[in-house]
Amino acid sequence: MPMNRRIISQRIAAVRRELKRRKIGCLIVTSPANVTYMTGFLGADSCAALTPARTYLLTDSRYTEQAQKECPTSTIIRRTGSMAQAVAGLVARLKAVRTVTAEESVSLADFEALKRQLKSQPKSVGGIIEAIRGVKGRDEITAIEASGRIAIKALDRTISQIKVGITEIELAGLLDFQLRKASATNSFNTIVAFGPNASRPHHQPGRRKLKKKDTVLIDFGARYRSYCSDITRCFVLGEPTAFYRKVFNVVERAQAAAIKAIGPGVKLTTVDSAARDVIRAADLPVYGHGTGHGLGLEIHELPFLKADSKAEKLKSGQVITIEPGIYIPGRLGVRIEDDVLVTETGSRVLTRRCPHSPALRA
Amino acid sequence: MPMNRRIISQRIAAVRRELKRRKIGCLIVTSPANVTYMTGFLGADSCAALTPARTYLLTDSRYTEQAQKECPTSTIIRRTGSMAQAVAGLVARLKAVRTVTAEESVSLADFEALKRQLKSQPKSVGGIIEAIRGVKGRDEITAIEASGRIAIKALDRTISQIKVGITEIELAGLLDFQLRKASATNSFNTIVAFGPNASRPHHQPGRRKLKKKDTVLIDFGARYRSYCSDITRCFVLGEPTAFYRKVFNVVERAQAAAIKAIGPGVKLTTVDSAARDVIRAADLPVYGHGTGHGLGLEIHELPFLKADSKAEKLKSGQVITIEPGIYIPGRLGVRIEDDVLVTETGSRVLTRRCPHSPALRA
Repeated sequence: MPMNRRIISQRIAAVRRELKRRKIGCLIVTSPANVTYMTGFLGADSCAALTPARTYLLTDSRYTEQAQKECPTSTIIRRTGSMAQAVAGLVARLKAVRTVTAEESVSLADFEALKRQLKSQPKSVGGIIEAIRGVKGRDEITAIEASGRIAIKALDRTISQIKVGITEIELAGLLDFQLRKASATNSFNTIVAFGPNASRPHHQPGRRKLKKKDTVLIDFGARYRSYCSDITRCFVLGEPTAFYRKVFNVVERAQAAAIKAIGPGVKLTTVDSAARDVIRAADLPVYGHGTGHGLGLEIHELPFLKADSKAEKLKSGQVITIEPGIYIPGRLGVRIEDDVLVTETGSRVLTRRCPHSPALRA
Repeated sequence: MPMNRRIISQRIAAVRRELKRRKIGCLIVTSPANVTYMTGFLGADSCAALTPARTYLLTDSRYTEQAQKECPTSTIIRRTGSMAQAVAGLVARLKAVRTVTAEESVSLADFEALKRQLKSQPKSVGGIIEAIRGVKGRDEITAIEASGRIAIKALDRTISQIKVGITEIELAGLLDFQLRKASATNSFNTIVAFGPNASRPHHQPGRRKLKKKDTVLIDFGARYRSYCSDITRCFVLGEPTAFYRKVFNVVERAQAAAIKAIGPGVKLTTVDSAARDVIRAADLPVYGHGTGHGLGLEIHELPFLKADSKAEKLKSGQVITIEPGIYIPGRLGVRIEDDVLVTETGSRVLTRRCPHSPALRA
């Protein structure tokens, strides 16, 4: 389903205002998520060029038919040579454009190629579209919520199939299949970690089989209509040990403290330390990763909630994960993650209905 | 399973020889596949630094436990700040290193950050590790073959479940699940296209339901022990039309002609045009994409077989796809793709046993 023409036009207008302010005549958009945001295009190997008058999508023959459907607001240019040649060819035809500014997420190689093709030195700029994308429109919040609902339903259907003997990779496969059945895909490689494997926050599911009394960590999300959700849940087959229960409870409280701290104008570091303080006070090891990140067209996007997030503040309309964890190598790992909308007055958890209990029937 | 220590050491030796020849004292490896190739590391957000004396892996707390398991030949450095800070910190301690050379696939932003952190200007270089990766070791060929076998078995099990009413996205889900059950993942987002949807080479599976007499295009692959396979097959529910049969036959002959042309020392363009010539001779539209690409740790890597591939020649040990297609928007799309090893004397198709018939039982 192509994106709404009016919404794309609003986004283009917002970016154009920023380009005008910065005196940028032609922005070359190379980040795939930014290309999608500005044009609606969902393919790969393509870039967009944004001028005060028009939006161009530069793509190749594999995608021209798709682009015609997906990008009603863009002028589609079918390139046959390299991207740099295509950009230079376009710019040569645009008399109003003097200099070209590329997104700094471009590879050094592509930027150098652009330098060689263009008559005047290109410039670079970072974060213009990312900053605008950081604050979600109503349509985007709806899409992220829908993606969260699909993820929750998929998890619900999957946990009823958890039983002794299943491997991590099979369980991940079952979950991915449930996402697919709901017309979604996974928003990143589904993480399933049994027992002490969960102490590695980005464990890749393997052939380890689930044992009696084992713990299960699942970190996953749906991508639905291009928008991501991201959820982590922990379960125990049967009764958790007293220590696991303690750790789980501390993580739960750490997450609640961070969510409670969320609101427009609140420093990112305030939210980050709200979670860490709870874990520190319980004399348990504080996680090395961030407390959360924005999500939308990408699974990780602005803002990033870390201990060193500097002076940045939350804005209403941002959607962030809150995902503190406790990791004890060789012993256990517990992380709880939800997606939270920053509202005008505080916050709203978008993934609350997700099954959320440490104990599973064995 | 960590990669073999001896194999990693051989790779490092090969890259070091090239660095010595080019007088590069310290190569900063940022491409994820190159990091895996040089260290065995399978996580994200990490880079490697290669000096004549040692290989360093710079990663963060999410991955340190994993890195210790996966990277027996590397010195693991846990970074807390940015990657640029970590690299600069390392270089400051390495007295023998005067200048740093980064891979040109690094983003412009990261390269600029590196510039700011380092005392002397960094340089950049492209394609050193990619060129070495282009020719596969015996272990890699074995891994790609294993990945191909898993893909074939998964397709075999999936096509028996194809029936009227199934959606593209469900069929893709079934196939992905079969890959997961074999301890693999998909090597890219599985493409399933029914009917005229197949005219878009990179169609994303949607909610279209399979109808009687419909055609099915499936382009997919497994990633197993980090190595990719890539296969495309086309089917018809029931009897194909005479035109579909003709097109299918032409694509089959185009693929056979390209495979026949493969051998060490053969120009990439010779193989490319062998396929195109068959389609042109049949007076059918010639595809706009390349005829094939290398594959290994990445789904697309060197060499690329395109009409403009210049003077490059095939080398024994390369593994490439051969995937000509015919696309008629609104009507049909047919592509056939196999993975082929360039041998000392010619070629060997690694995915031949894959089901390969245009007609399915309805």
